[in-house]
Amino acid sequence: MIGIFDSGFGGLTVFKEIKRALPDYSYIYLGDNLRAPYGGRSQEAVYQFTEKAVDFLFKQGCRLVIIACNTASAEALRKLQQEWLPKNYPDCRILGVIRPVVEEAAKISRFGRIGVVGTKSTIDSKAYIRELKTENSKLQIFQNSCPLLVPLVEEGMIKKPETRMTIKKCLRSLKEREIDTLILGCTHYPLLMKEFERIIGKRVKVLDAPKVVAEKLVDYLNRHPEIESKIEKNKTHLRQDHGGQAVRYLTTDSSEKFETLGSKFIGSKIKGEKVEL
Amino acid sequence: MIGIFDSGFGGLTVFKEIKRALPDYSYIYLGDNLRAPYGGRSQEAVYQFTEKAVDFLFKQGCRLVIIACNTASAEALRKLQQEWLPKNYPDCRILGVIRPVVEEAAKISRFGRIGVVGTKSTIDSKAYIRELKTENSKLQIFQNSCPLLVPLVEEGMIKKPETRMTIKKCLRSLKEREIDTLILGCTHYPLLMKEFERIIGKRVKVLDAPKVVAEKLVDYLNRHPEIESKIEKNKTHLRQDHGGQAVRYLTTDSSEKFETLGSKFIGSKIKGEKVEL
Repeated sequence: MIGIFDSGFGGLTVFKEIKRALPDYSYIYLGDNLRAPYGGRSQEAVYQFTEKAVDFLFKQGCRLVIIACNTASAEALRKLQQEWLPKNYPDCRILGVIRPVVEEAAKISRFGRIGVVGTKSTIDSKAYIRELKTENSKLQIFQNSCPLLVPLVEEGMIKKPETRMTIKKCLRSLKEREIDTLILGCTHYPLLMKEFERIIGKRVKVLDAPKVVAEKLVDYLNRHPEIESKIEKNKTHLRQDHGGQAVRYLTTDSSEKFETLGSKFIGSKIKGEKVEL
Repeated sequence: MIGIFDSGFGGLTVFKEIKRALPDYSYIYLGDNLRAPYGGRSQEAVYQFTEKAVDFLFKQGCRLVIIACNTASAEALRKLQQEWLPKNYPDCRILGVIRPVVEEAAKISRFGRIGVVGTKSTIDSKAYIRELKTENSKLQIFQNSCPLLVPLVEEGMIKKPETRMTIKKCLRSLKEREIDTLILGCTHYPLLMKEFERIIGKRVKVLDAPKVVAEKLVDYLNRHPEIESKIEKNKTHLRQDHGGQAVRYLTTDSSEKFETLGSKFIGSKIKGEKVEL
């Protein structure tokens, strides 16, 4: 089965699209709500939390884990892929959310002027700049952090003037730089997609990161039958164990809280289970 | 020595006043920045984190611990005082920030109409209502949560229109109820004292919680020489161990980050040390 890891709720925007694109798989979603948000923590802390979570998902039988959190993708993914995974789970794979979006942005950008917005950690890590430059060294990248949007979304303030004001401020310098493509580098921001599109204007393409991640995952599985076949095998096993349910939602804080806010992200009622990492 | 515990930075507003009122003691400030903010977590999680932190401070030699976090005071203090402390450290004491402010509010309120604002957990816990009613059952209490103010303060947005708008919205219903006294039930809010005073108007007394907590602590130590004398003994010991420093700032996340934001709260440069709980 496929594991989806996020620091909290945000990864549900990514998971929703993955589930839609690949409905026949079994999934475990794990939200580390006890330690969320990762956005302002040290790199060391983010790495430790992410390693623990990913290890947990592999122990549950996942063969492929998607780190749906931008902060964790920026601060922990590379080390996990290069050092930790080969030693501990050489047959398994971990993918992040930055790489697929970067590939897409580099492909569609008309004038090579790309804007990135995200939490403070993600922006400070310069992970998007690094990955975009690797993809095409001629790209010009302008980025800005917008840390207030996560609490605003979690407080349900999506259409409020405070939120619009925050987005406007965040985009001002990127607009001046005449970007042609905008990456929403935080999993909460797709819930503000319309506001971002309205404020940045029609000339800029705002990437729908969850959709891009899901499409690239379909591609990836087609190109890697050795991984794809292993996931398939686990599917039946999970369905039998969990009363035919193909999705489990795990959280490190109270399951009630997860169910309430998580259902809003997914758009239908979900059942949460509390786990300890 | 005296331990001050908070989920992160907010307790520094309380600590600053305590240090000013009682400059001759030695202190350990512990901020659980790795798991902050506590404001939105389950009661169980808040209790577990707080118990661990308080235990750590007593093991460091503290005889008295002030829980400077409103959420932890609301969700964990009572159980710690009644069940945990007598079993584990019968000679030590734990105090919170709610009780002293409640006593003061009940004393100064002219018409018995008290407003309380705080994080979602603090407000949902109804701890202020319970304590105020115990103090005087005739008091009328109106409360409202204002969860966005913590991230706004931590992002340095103190004088920004978004912040004013958030405070205005939060106070609207309390203004309509014609409160005469306002309790800022979150340690971050004193940094917005002037904005609160301006928006709520001159007829309402806004309590300066950190100052009240510090004054009541002076009182408490005068009334409890058996505690006061034990703290005295430890003081010299700490000063010798830590190069004459009478204050140690401990944090569970990176010390650099703590130093940067912590210095803003304290108003002068501080040195952080990272610890594991």
